[in-house]
Amino acid sequence: MKIEIYDTTLRDGSQGCSVDFSPEDKLTVLHTLDRLGVSYIEVGMMTDRTSAAFCEKIAGERLQTAVPVIFGQTCRPGEACRDNAALRAMAECSLSAVTIYGKSWLYQVNEVLHTTAEENLRMIWETVRFLKSAGKQVFFDAEHFFDGYSDNAEYAMRVVETAFTAGADRVILCDTNGGMLPDTIGLVVNAVTCQYGIGKVGIHCHNDLGMAVAGSVSAVLSGASQVQGTISGFGERCGNANLNTLIPVLQLKLGFDCIGQRLKELTSCARSINETANRAFNENEPFVGGYAFTHKAGTHIDGVTKAPRSFEHMDPAAVGNRRNIVISSLSGRAALADKMRSYLPPEDLTKDSPRLLELAKILKERESLGFDYEDAAASLSLLIEEVLNQRKRYFELLHFKVMVENSAVHTPEAWAAAEAMSAIATIKIAVGSREELTAGEGNGPVNAMDEALRRALVRFYPQISQMRLTDYKVRVLTSGATASVVRVLIESTDGVEIWRTVGVSPDIITASWQALRDSVEYMLSRHRD
Amino acid sequence: MKIEIYDTTLRDGSQGCSVDFSPEDKLTVLHTLDRLGVSYIEVGMMTDRTSAAFCEKIAGERLQTAVPVIFGQTCRPGEACRDNAALRAMAECSLSAVTIYGKSWLYQVNEVLHTTAEENLRMIWETVRFLKSAGKQVFFDAEHFFDGYSDNAEYAMRVVETAFTAGADRVILCDTNGGMLPDTIGLVVNAVTCQYGIGKVGIHCHNDLGMAVAGSVSAVLSGASQVQGTISGFGERCGNANLNTLIPVLQLKLGFDCIGQRLKELTSCARSINETANRAFNENEPFVGGYAFTHKAGTHIDGVTKAPRSFEHMDPAAVGNRRNIVISSLSGRAALADKMRSYLPPEDLTKDSPRLLELAKILKERESLGFDYEDAAASLSLLIEEVLNQRKRYFELLHFKVMVENSAVHTPEAWAAAEAMSAIATIKIAVGSREELTAGEGNGPVNAMDEALRRALVRFYPQISQMRLTDYKVRVLTSGATASVVRVLIESTDGVEIWRTVGVSPDIITASWQALRDSVEYMLSRHRD
Repeated sequence: MKIEIYDTTLRDGSQGCSVDFSPEDKLTVLHTLDRLGVSYIEVGMMTDRTSAAFCEKIAGERLQTAVPVIFGQTCRPGEACRDNAALRAMAECSLSAVTIYGKSWLYQVNEVLHTTAEENLRMIWETVRFLKSAGKQVFFDAEHFFDGYSDNAEYAMRVVETAFTAGADRVILCDTNGGMLPDTIGLVVNAVTCQYGIGKVGIHCHNDLGMAVAGSVSAVLSGASQVQGTISGFGERCGNANLNTLIPVLQLKLGFDCIGQRLKELTSCARSINETANRAFNENEPFVGGYAFTHKAGTHIDGVTKAPRSFEHMDPAAVGNRRNIVISSLSGRAALADKMRSYLPPEDLTKDSPRLLELAKILKERESLGFDYEDAAASLSLLIEEVLNQRKRYFELLHFKVMVENSAVHTPEAWAAAEAMSAIATIKIAVGSREELTAGEGNGPVNAMDEALRRALVRFYPQISQMRLTDYKVRVLTSGATASVVRVLIESTDGVEIWRTVGVSPDIITASWQALRDSVEYMLSRHRD
Repeated sequence: MKIEIYDTTLRDGSQGCSVDFSPEDKLTVLHTLDRLGVSYIEVGMMTDRTSAAFCEKIAGERLQTAVPVIFGQTCRPGEACRDNAALRAMAECSLSAVTIYGKSWLYQVNEVLHTTAEENLRMIWETVRFLKSAGKQVFFDAEHFFDGYSDNAEYAMRVVETAFTAGADRVILCDTNGGMLPDTIGLVVNAVTCQYGIGKVGIHCHNDLGMAVAGSVSAVLSGASQVQGTISGFGERCGNANLNTLIPVLQLKLGFDCIGQRLKELTSCARSINETANRAFNENEPFVGGYAFTHKAGTHIDGVTKAPRSFEHMDPAAVGNRRNIVISSLSGRAALADKMRSYLPPEDLTKDSPRLLELAKILKERESLGFDYEDAAASLSLLIEEVLNQRKRYFELLHFKVMVENSAVHTPEAWAAAEAMSAIATIKIAVGSREELTAGEGNGPVNAMDEALRRALVRFYPQISQMRLTDYKVRVLTSGATASVVRVLIESTDGVEIWRTVGVSPDIITASWQALRDSVEYMLSRHRD
């Protein structure tokens, strides 16, 4: 059976804190969602001329599978639809589908709209008629439907009846406050679908109880055939139902058809939309997260290597993701051997191979110092090369010095802008018999160090100019004032590959230097030109 | 009805990627969980002498409500319990409760353990007997129970029967792979509780379908009386069931008793444990997140102001959280007025007081720069004093300079020990008309700066020698290489009081200096002798 996926990332999703899309971003997201194969894409709310112009722009885009939809509100109490500018704009726009929201909870009708039960029904009926007469496909979002149903089921059902009688193509039952349990949602959806049949009812859940996905699944099992949600669950408060989770659950676990073969695009589309929204991806996200199929505990790695089903509920490839094994002292020698496969001949890969034992020992020592290779695979592979005497040293550090200087500046605003700051690093390296002494300046010491090191190396290794740092993370490991140990993680890219390195020291500058050095050496070992 | 909350943040939670607790961190988390009022705290896995010694340390801690539990595995195929060092250590340790995990899925028994169905039952039976004979309360975690039940219900039930016959106090049904739908979990739990009654069965869910909370709720509604989970859902892959969500759902929405009146501590405990783990708090988290009751859309703000129920499914105060309104800052000012109560007369505490408006404006500016006063009350009170022209300046900074120098040292071990490191700071300050120039040396730049500042100040303010830094935390706020903005939080103490201060800058040294300066000034303002 086909379930319509209705994405509202661009509308309800962007009501979430720290989610913000520019008009260009919106077009990018639109095409990514179309590539994913969703049925409908809510592109925004009709409010003024800007949104009307944006609708025309959207209507001109060539889409493969998705129908774009514009969102709006019923007319106001006492108002005729033709007197409502937003409704007129919706009727006149080039998009073929519209969604209208209205109240279905009497408490809201009285306390927020300050109108009567009958007037609210009139508003819904006339708005749906108005847009149907304009030839639109009309979806009606029944706001607070579940609270309304609990409070006064008869009135809530009259709202649904009114929308359908006026010609609405779907009525979507919304848990606007997100406070409903999945079982309640199932029961109420069942009451509606029993009356109006399958294929006419949708569900829109929020995640305030951490169960928006479960509530949506419960609704589908009770006959809802349209599911509204957002990528990564973006949305106000605790977010909307997460489509990245819902789509594979419905398709792989329950056998409904949502996006067919395009399910393989899910991981890449989800990551791309997070990237467009400039959000750090939640790697723990079900199905699409980088950790979703990552194994760390030794017994789990052992199990999954022997029999994948033992710690994986499905094949990661089905959603375009992949298995990942993390190396730490928890992961055991089997995982280590697996990692060494590309460095060593098979006979050295047994559990008692002296090289494997040595590497395991060194790994444990490093971890006790505070090193952590989980998120620093590039440093790990350099370490393996080192233990195997395969690590190439591209330069020798002879000396470095970092100076940070500041004169009297008192306001935090000026400090924060670092107007008066200056960090200078000097570095002296040797490549073979040639020495190079350079200086670099930056916002802070690590910046200055990075600058100086590149200047020193570019003479010997011009390819270094392709590389740049993309992220920098600091973690203080043990409490107890500033003498604690600091772990620095650096993420770098050459525009194609991304790699991560680690450094540890009581001193942040030294820790940063180690991670920086590893990053540069890893880059050079991969670009031997 | 009472539901036992069994927290496994320190064990299963720390198997999650990028979750890492030092032994000191673990003690902090232990006491925070005890303050929250959970029934059981799984403190780690028994593996070697280090974990055995850690158990003794835990056993010596005074707890109000929680029972600490150590986790381990059954004996191996063909092995007697007395020959298993970890089991002997569990039997001999001073903790009164232990959890043992074993297999309940024949596929696992054959493919991973490589043993027979009967031998697996023998291992479970003898291990439970062995630990019961040692006088322990014994919980048996039936790993992969739901996969096992689907595959071969009779064998899965024999595993449960074996554990109970051997004397297990609870059998916990685990969805180890996290691939089960809530309805399936409910049906299977029901089959077990029908046979063994209420009060004997627990549930342990993983979040691979994004439904660990819903699955746990379904289990409780089917008769499970112990719920295992972690704070913020920390854990391997997609994490465990999130206790921050589960506890209020069970207690507020379904009327079970989990932690009673301590529910009000939930937000503060959840934040504190994330802080200890140095994890950026997920502000979208249900119930405890900073956005959970935050309203951004105009209609929602309008609605919630007119009638709270219209966009809030519950009162945020029940879990120690609060409503937050973005943009309008109306409720922001009410909270600010509350904060200003000790500084201002009542007539200045109205919503339109010019001083309140000015402070609200400055606070907003600071926040947009990256300052965060939630965990830095000392900096906030200095800021309030500043706005009110009540802040005393104890010294004037004339100049500072930090130098970090390093000569050729190549091994990470030496780097980590910082044997060859030297950071030197010089600082010049004025107190009234007297100037002081000092230098300090340290492991790293912040250390050196702290040292130099104290030396400069002690001549004028001898009480400064009572103060020391106790914690130092760094968070990089925006991604994008080393030019990101850095927030530093410093915790200090004079042996009696503890206070926290904040600094923000693109440069870590400057950010540290701000936090350090605030810390010293706060101390001096409290010790005017």
